[in-house]
Amino acid sequence: MTTDSPRRSIVTLTTDFGDRDGYVGSLRGVLLAHDPNLVLADITHAIAPFAVMEGALVLRAAAGHFPPGTVHLAVVDPGVGGERRPIIVSLEGHHFVGPDNGLFTPFLDGASIVTIDAARLDLPDPAPTFHGRDLFAPVAARLATGAAPADFGPPIHDPVRLDWPELIPVEGGVAGVVLHVDRFGNAITNLPADRDTGLDTFEAGGRQGIPRVRTYAEAPRGSVVALVGSSGLIEVAVVEGSAAEKLGLSVGSKVIGHRAG
Amino acid sequence: MTTDSPRRSIVTLTTDFGDRDGYVGSLRGVLLAHDPNLVLADITHAIAPFAVMEGALVLRAAAGHFPPGTVHLAVVDPGVGGERRPIIVSLEGHHFVGPDNGLFTPFLDGASIVTIDAARLDLPDPAPTFHGRDLFAPVAARLATGAAPADFGPPIHDPVRLDWPELIPVEGGVAGVVLHVDRFGNAITNLPADRDTGLDTFEAGGRQGIPRVRTYAEAPRGSVVALVGSSGLIEVAVVEGSAAEKLGLSVGSKVIGHRAG
Amino acid sequence: MTTDSPRRSIVTLTTDFGDRDGYVGSLRGVLLAHDPNLVLADITHAIAPFAVMEGALVLRAAAGHFPPGTVHLAVVDPGVGGERRPIIVSLEGHHFVGPDNGLFTPFLDGASIVTIDAARLDLPDPAPTFHGRDLFAPVAARLATGAAPADFGPPIHDPVRLDWPELIPVEGGVAGVVLHVDRFGNAITNLPADRDTGLDTFEAGGRQGIPRVRTYAEAPRGSVVALVGSSGLIEVAVVEGSAAEKLGLSVGSKVIGHRAG
Repeated sequence: MTTDSPRRSIVTLTTDFGDRDGYVGSLRGVLLAHDPNLVLADITHAIAPFAVMEGALVLRAAAGHFPPGTVHLAVVDPGVGGERRPIIVSLEGHHFVGPDNGLFTPFLDGASIVTIDAARLDLPDPAPTFHGRDLFAPVAARLATGAAPADFGPPIHDPVRLDWPELIPVEGGVAGVVLHVDRFGNAITNLPADRDTGLDTFEAGGRQGIPRVRTYAEAPRGSVVALVGSSGLIEVAVVEGSAAEKLGLSVGSKVIGHRAG
Repeated sequence: MTTDSPRRSIVTLTTDFGDRDGYVGSLRGVLLAHDPNLVLADITHAIAPFAVMEGALVLRAAAGHFPPGTVHLAVVDPGVGGERRPIIVSLEGHHFVGPDNGLFTPFLDGASIVTIDAARLDLPDPAPTFHGRDLFAPVAARLATGAAPADFGPPIHDPVRLDWPELIPVEGGVAGVVLHVDRFGNAITNLPADRDTGLDTFEAGGRQGIPRVRTYAEAPRGSVVALVGSSGLIEVAVVEGSAAEKLGLSVGSKVIGHRAG
Repeated sequence: MTTDSPRRSIVTLTTDFGDRDGYVGSLRGVLLAHDPNLVLADITHAIAPFAVMEGALVLRAAAGHFPPGTVHLAVVDPGVGGERRPIIVSLEGHHFVGPDNGLFTPFLDGASIVTIDAARLDLPDPAPTFHGRDLFAPVAARLATGAAPADFGPPIHDPVRLDWPELIPVEGGVAGVVLHVDRFGNAITNLPADRDTGLDTFEAGGRQGIPRVRTYAEAPRGSVVALVGSSGLIEVAVVEGSAAEKLGLSVGSKVIGHRAG
């Protein structure tokens, strides 16, 4: 059942719009009105309202699994209608379209970046509260159907970057923080996962000596473990349970990794 | 990467089915079994159970952004299995398929409307609790692949209409209500947004003198403002916060607009 | 607006990944990177974490509405990284890809089943916590684009089956349990719906004499009724309300059906 059709263009969607209003539907309408052959793929619309860092982390986890040529439309935009610039970030064949507020921090190193000059677009004035629909979606649709980033505006070299939480050396190890708590209650940290860092026990939420395992199946149900998560970072988890709940962890909670003694 | 494929037909989906049962998946299956080339686009499945007015408002915000030729399958259907008629509403090249209970109120003026005569469809008897799957989805699929509304049944001229909340003139202004609270806690009212109505301060949730701004960025974080929302109605909002929470607003709450004194 | 394109292949997605992390987006990326012409159709991502039985029930309700040739990627996988086998279940032209933990129980009778031998796939080692992305999605994509189940590994004949709750005969009727509570608060039971079983009143949550109706519209708003649901099983419902809330029902609650006296 393979097909001979020409390769179709993918547009992913990542927003904090939630699922119960007409906002995401409006984006889909604008994109498909431009070209119904576009392939729309949701990454998520459940980013917490205005949580730019969370949006950046979810994009970091998912965007790279799409093929080169994909356009990633991402709107977590507390500054909509203000002075923050609309931008296109291009890296390794992927294009990211959205606000210049740090949302694309994981993709800035080595990227080409342009600001979008709305005057070039021959569009009605965007609603001051909904650039996702009236500015970013039309740009994403045009990029996906053949326009080049340079068609939309001049290059910039000073994109806004989020302050990524830094690792702090401590005696016998390193201290990091919880970056994200996922649906299962796994606490994803900024601690590096490479074996050669030698971190093999962890401390989080007042619990010491959390052992490092390779897979959930190595420890009994309900036990607290640390392991390399699917994004290549250390996660604190409870086997078939919620580490966030059991240990009281949330974004920003401290997690310490200890080297083998 | 543009394509030469024939234009593909779009079917949007709007329901109160939620996301955790198999109901929406069943709709998608029926539609794609009819034609896997259909483009399915969710508007939302998170309408509150049986909330016909909320469904109408979300459709009003999103449907018009899809191109002419789109079929909008919408099912918020407390009367399923009873005497309410199944209908197709056609307006400006868009077709709306679902129950005749007011859900399509925003699209009735100037529309052509037919009732669906299930006997013409050569389908098994629909499950009395799930006309979305067994009646509306097959009709939507056929409409999207070339059938005409008149193929499904005779015209009607007395569709059910929701009582849209009316504006009430008050001294120096006009009183309206909150129609919808969105994910961000913005309270979307039925107050008209045209500048020439001259409304420039607002009263809601016991707070007086709420100023009108053009964009969130004009006021400091946490301040209460009123502005023209993306659907062209006045919204009461808190900059990077929730107006619904801060002012205790919900659907039906009174909002008064005052003209400049 | 019908098209001449070749028939496109459908991959459905059913997981417990939720909607707020990048996990589902990653699956979509892997599938579309393999072939952007695949038609992706979500069944649900809101299965409760690790709730294999719930996943099986939702698949049972929805999968059969898709056309033969559909590949169903389903991941509710508490044993990921352990010894549970990855499998492909093929029945009546449908292929189910996921863990061998009972998730596919409704589709095992009469099916052909193979285990997936990861070594044949020429893929990087899967992340031990995310076989959905690194093993099952690539297999689903290849099946949907022409590979045969036998290409992936040898047949097996001992798949894991869930213990489906059994019916227990009682005086004048039969006792069953609530299998699933849906979004509307309907309590879907394992009681058979065939008229010839003669069950015509029901007992649930301490309430006796719940009448059987054909459709919600037969009883006044707020009344407790039993009826044949869209999956062909008896449901206890409240007209335009929640039976789960009104009667305190949840998964496992006892429901007794009585024959006409």
